[in-house]
Amino acid sequence: MQYSSRHLENLVDQLSKLPGIGKKTAQRLAFHLLRVDQKEALALSEAIERMRLEVGTCERCGNVAETQPCYLCADEKRDAHLVCVVELPGDVVALERTGAFHGLYHVLRGVLAPLEGIGPEDLRVAELVERVRHEGITEVILALNPTSQGEATSHFLAELLAKEGVTVSRIARGVPMGSEIELSDSATLVRALEGRRQI
Amino acid sequence: MQYSSRHLENLVDQLSKLPGIGKKTAQRLAFHLLRVDQKEALALSEAIERMRLEVGTCERCGNVAETQPCYLCADEKRDAHLVCVVELPGDVVALERTGAFHGLYHVLRGVLAPLEGIGPEDLRVAELVERVRHEGITEVILALNPTSQGEATSHFLAELLAKEGVTVSRIARGVPMGSEIELSDSATLVRALEGRRQI
Repeated sequence: MQYSSRHLENLVDQLSKLPGIGKKTAQRLAFHLLRVDQKEALALSEAIERMRLEVGTCERCGNVAETQPCYLCADEKRDAHLVCVVELPGDVVALERTGAFHGLYHVLRGVLAPLEGIGPEDLRVAELVERVRHEGITEVILALNPTSQGEATSHFLAELLAKEGVTVSRIARGVPMGSEIELSDSATLVRALEGRRQI
Repeated sequence: MQYSSRHLENLVDQLSKLPGIGKKTAQRLAFHLLRVDQKEALALSEAIERMRLEVGTCERCGNVAETQPCYLCADEKRDAHLVCVVELPGDVVALERTGAFHGLYHVLRGVLAPLEGIGPEDLRVAELVERVRHEGITEVILALNPTSQGEATSHFLAELLAKEGVTVSRIARGVPMGSEIELSDSATLVRALEGRRQI
C-alpha cells in the first residue's frame, strides 16, 4: 500500500480514472478533499450520487434531464417551430450560454461513424423524424461539430429531413471571432470564403 | 440555469471548487461522470464519503490514518529508533515510494510561519518532543521542504531536539537527479557545493 490509509488510496485510484487526471493530480485532489471542511467534501460526494441517481434523458429532446420533458422542452416561451440538432448535451450548454437561440433542441447523442459501427439506429435519428412529423417544426438547424463525421451526419440528416418538407439549415463555418486570418487553417478559410455574405 | 439539470449544475459547481479545476474542466468531468457506468460514478462518490467519514489522524505520528496507530506506526518491522519529520501526509507518500526509508514518520502538519501567526503550538512539535523522550528515538531526520519557512522550521527543531540529546540530521539539498547544472538556480548550486562529499 502506497498510502497510510486504504480509503485514501481508493480515492486516489477513483479520481485518477477521470479524464485528464493523472496519479499526481488525483493525489493532490484527494489531500485537498481531506483538508477542506467535511461538509464541502461530502457535498461533492453527494452531488455525484444525486446526479447519477436522479438525472436521466429527456424523452423528447434527448438532453440531460431530471424531469420529463426537460425544462427546456417544457418552456412555453421557446419557439417550438425551430429545432437545433446537436451531438451531445454539452453542446446545448454552449448554445444556451449565447442566449441567442430560443428554439428547442434535439440531442443526437453522437454522430454517424460507420467504421465504428455507429449507424442512424444508434442515434436519436428516428426520434428527430418523429418530432418533425408531429410537432409542427418548420426549421431544423444542424449544429454538429465541424469534423468529417459531423459533416457526414449533417448531410445524411439534411437528405432525410428534406423528404419531410422541413427547412434544414446548418450553422456557419468560418473564422472564429478573435482569431487571426494568418493563423487560420486552410479548411476553415475555404469554408469562410464559401460562406461569404454581402455587406 | 445554465444546465438542463439542477443536479448537473450542482455537480459542476462542486467540481469547480477543486484546486486547478476550472469551470470548463468541471463540466467535462461532470459529463464524463454522467456517461460512465453508474457503478463507476457511484464508486467515486462513495470513495470521497468513506475517506472523509473514516479517515482521521494517527495520534502518534500525525499522518493520515484510519486506525490508531496508523499502519506505518504499527509495523514492527520498521526501525522505531529513526524518525523522519515531514510537513504533510503527501510527503510521507513520496518518501514511502522510494522504498529507501524504514524508520517511522512524524507529520508536523505545516511549518512555522510567524507572519501568518503559525507558531510551534499550531504544529505537532510538542508531540515530537514527547516521542523523542519516550520512544527511544536515536535519530531525527528533518525532511521539510527547502523553502525559507521549511529551513527556519528545521533550524528551530534542530535546536529544540539537540536539548533532548538526540541526533538530528537533515536531508541533503543539491542538484536533483536528471537536472542540468547549467539550468540550476544559484541557491541550489550553493547548497550542492556546501554539501559536497568526497568520493
